[in-house]
Amino acid sequence: MRMYDIIQKKRDGGKLTKEEIKFFVDGYTKGEIPDYQASALCMAIYYRKMSDRETAYLTDAMANSGDTLDLSCFGALSADKHSTGGVGDKTSLIVGPVVASLGVKLAKMSGRGLGHTGGTVDKLESISGYKTALSTDEFIDQVKKCGIAVIGQTADLAPADKKLYALRDVTATVDSIPLITSSIMSKKLAAGSRNIVLDVKVGSGAFMKTPRDARLLAKKMVTIGKKCRRNVRAVLTDMNVPLGNAVGNALEIKEAIAVLRDGKRGDLYDVCIALATQIVSLTFKLDEKSAREKVMGAVSDGSAFAKMREWIAAQGGDVSQIDHPEKLPTAKYEYKVVSEKDGYIEKMDTEKIGISAVLLGAGRKAKEDPIDHAAGIIIEKKTGDRVKCGDVLCTLFANDKSLFLSAREEYLSAIKFGEHSFEKQPVIYGIIK
Amino acid sequence: MRMYDIIQKKRDGGKLTKEEIKFFVDGYTKGEIPDYQASALCMAIYYRKMSDRETAYLTDAMANSGDTLDLSCFGALSADKHSTGGVGDKTSLIVGPVVASLGVKLAKMSGRGLGHTGGTVDKLESISGYKTALSTDEFIDQVKKCGIAVIGQTADLAPADKKLYALRDVTATVDSIPLITSSIMSKKLAAGSRNIVLDVKVGSGAFMKTPRDARLLAKKMVTIGKKCRRNVRAVLTDMNVPLGNAVGNALEIKEAIAVLRDGKRGDLYDVCIALATQIVSLTFKLDEKSAREKVMGAVSDGSAFAKMREWIAAQGGDVSQIDHPEKLPTAKYEYKVVSEKDGYIEKMDTEKIGISAVLLGAGRKAKEDPIDHAAGIIIEKKTGDRVKCGDVLCTLFANDKSLFLSAREEYLSAIKFGEHSFEKQPVIYGIIK
Repeated sequence: MRMYDIIQKKRDGGKLTKEEIKFFVDGYTKGEIPDYQASALCMAIYYRKMSDRETAYLTDAMANSGDTLDLSCFGALSADKHSTGGVGDKTSLIVGPVVASLGVKLAKMSGRGLGHTGGTVDKLESISGYKTALSTDEFIDQVKKCGIAVIGQTADLAPADKKLYALRDVTATVDSIPLITSSIMSKKLAAGSRNIVLDVKVGSGAFMKTPRDARLLAKKMVTIGKKCRRNVRAVLTDMNVPLGNAVGNALEIKEAIAVLRDGKRGDLYDVCIALATQIVSLTFKLDEKSAREKVMGAVSDGSAFAKMREWIAAQGGDVSQIDHPEKLPTAKYEYKVVSEKDGYIEKMDTEKIGISAVLLGAGRKAKEDPIDHAAGIIIEKKTGDRVKCGDVLCTLFANDKSLFLSAREEYLSAIKFGEHSFEKQPVIYGIIK
Repeated sequence: MRMYDIIQKKRDGGKLTKEEIKFFVDGYTKGEIPDYQASALCMAIYYRKMSDRETAYLTDAMANSGDTLDLSCFGALSADKHSTGGVGDKTSLIVGPVVASLGVKLAKMSGRGLGHTGGTVDKLESISGYKTALSTDEFIDQVKKCGIAVIGQTADLAPADKKLYALRDVTATVDSIPLITSSIMSKKLAAGSRNIVLDVKVGSGAFMKTPRDARLLAKKMVTIGKKCRRNVRAVLTDMNVPLGNAVGNALEIKEAIAVLRDGKRGDLYDVCIALATQIVSLTFKLDEKSAREKVMGAVSDGSAFAKMREWIAAQGGDVSQIDHPEKLPTAKYEYKVVSEKDGYIEKMDTEKIGISAVLLGAGRKAKEDPIDHAAGIIIEKKTGDRVKCGDVLCTLFANDKSLFLSAREEYLSAIKFGEHSFEKQPVIYGIIK
């Protein structure tokens, strides 16, 4: 078998066999197939696409290119959640304890933030003592005892994806549905859960800008997950505005506490209930109405918040910071961004708002950058809100005053004002089963 | 400027600017742009193609990536000829002295054979003493004195093409009209001649298998050459059968002598006259009819053969081998391949006939392989010929008897017999101006 022939076959629109795809993935992971042949193949896939069968072969080969987690001790109860990434997306901090309090076994490996989007692992590190690195045994042990553990990726899961993604990132071959699907799903398969719920974000702050593209990706991921013998559903959720009000690590932990303990409601709550409902419905094979009732009950009766405390404590975190969120990292300075006109917020460029938070120190431009857990933004006015001249649009938080100027400018450039009121869009676009 | 953006622009069907193309070519030649980005771009070009303007920018940037020859001392009289490669293609050995005898200054750098096609430099090395490596000064000096010099490529012409071609060869991105055009034309531009005639071969022994593809390539090359301020024409010629009767280095020198000295006529003569006519017409701005008369006159009155002797002598070759071709390298053994049936030759897979000659030692499978100048094939029956059982189809020549078996098998597998006679095709498909 020759890599040349595989490239040529895909170039001409042929369907690659399981053996051809495995030859490529294994050879590339081992370094026997050079980057320049892999990038030519990715570009050919960009144009010629891949059938569901080919995508499943690719996903499976990448999932098996390194370590895989064995969660069979949890039977049918293991579950995982994945978000395609957005701004202010702290759903894992809320959905995790909700479903764990209902008996789901949530063994979740999360990422760090990069570019305009945040990462769950960074957010959790706002809490003193919280350990994001556990051994596989400790990880599984904690899920057994507590029902939930959230760590950074420690095992060598899907190294083929890691290598291929880095290559796609510099060769303009990221935007390909079969390649995105295999990248996401290979990691989820390697992470071992039986039930997987995908939160596919749509809009100006998301990777997928239109509902059509997001739906295509979601359908493909669900199809491929099923072909690889997992239970999978996807929820399409809005990312044309930041989710909730807080953007920035400690600020987002505080907002999660506000939802679980203080009864805060709104778009963030709605998305979390939708995601938790799908996980519970899938794991316990319950109809959605019953699942939804259980999920809402776990929030309102305080059992989800109790589970959050238990989880943070079990993973070494300082629970007094959960009980007294003012003890979490707090920025030295704050700056109120005030509206200079009357009107309605017609649109928010959510990616720019994420970048504004990065400028304050809340995120990373490059992988090795440090982050400031206290920095970020509290948004006061969102799309559809009426704004009067002098109203506070948002508050910026930073430990260095000199950062406010450029962050304010970036934030304001993200807001488009209009003259007329309009109805707000629903935050859930659909469920893909 | 970033290579990523250039790939993405072409991926999405955009037109690259002169600066973008120069950035790519210069960066890639210097090794600042990695192979994996170059191969992704080539694959994007494969699908999205390039406009004439983009192709001219690419050709020009590659032509200027290394040394360029200054032939301005010859004014408007410098000419070059290029063949896209075939089997039995010894036209340069004939056309060169014909046009030089008429006053054209032919400064030609030729290649070596690889795969099923031969190379002019290998053929000339059949002649004892012939020097294929001259310094640039010696090369130009000889063209001044003699009107013709043919050498291997010594200067570092178009190194960008050399590097890019090697990459395309292993990433399935060779078959792209703009990339083929820029590859061929960049070398011709760097070689400095004012007038360029391209022999674009069509058929089973050629790179372009159909007249349609060959015509597209020829048109693109002529257009790009003109955009780069050269006089260019292309002749589409048949390569569904080997050209002439001899395949193999010394055997082809002998056939060239037979045409120029002994009045041998046929397809080889016809193609040579057509090519020489275009060179003479282009260089002296003569109408084709007058050019053709001059060209045929130079062959029939012996001045072309006299020029051949002068050229070979000037380049150090043993002229007694030209006067007595039996002194050229001769194989120890010969083997007659005899027909085992009656009929007409309906088709010849010319690439296979080239491979048969390689199997006898006349060519190379890999770049570093030695070649046997005496080995080869004399073809007795060609497409359209009637064959009776027992007729000799061809004679094989080798210095090792054990090579005959597989060469015979390959040769016979190339021949398709039919039951009916038919008219032979003309060897010239058209002229592109």
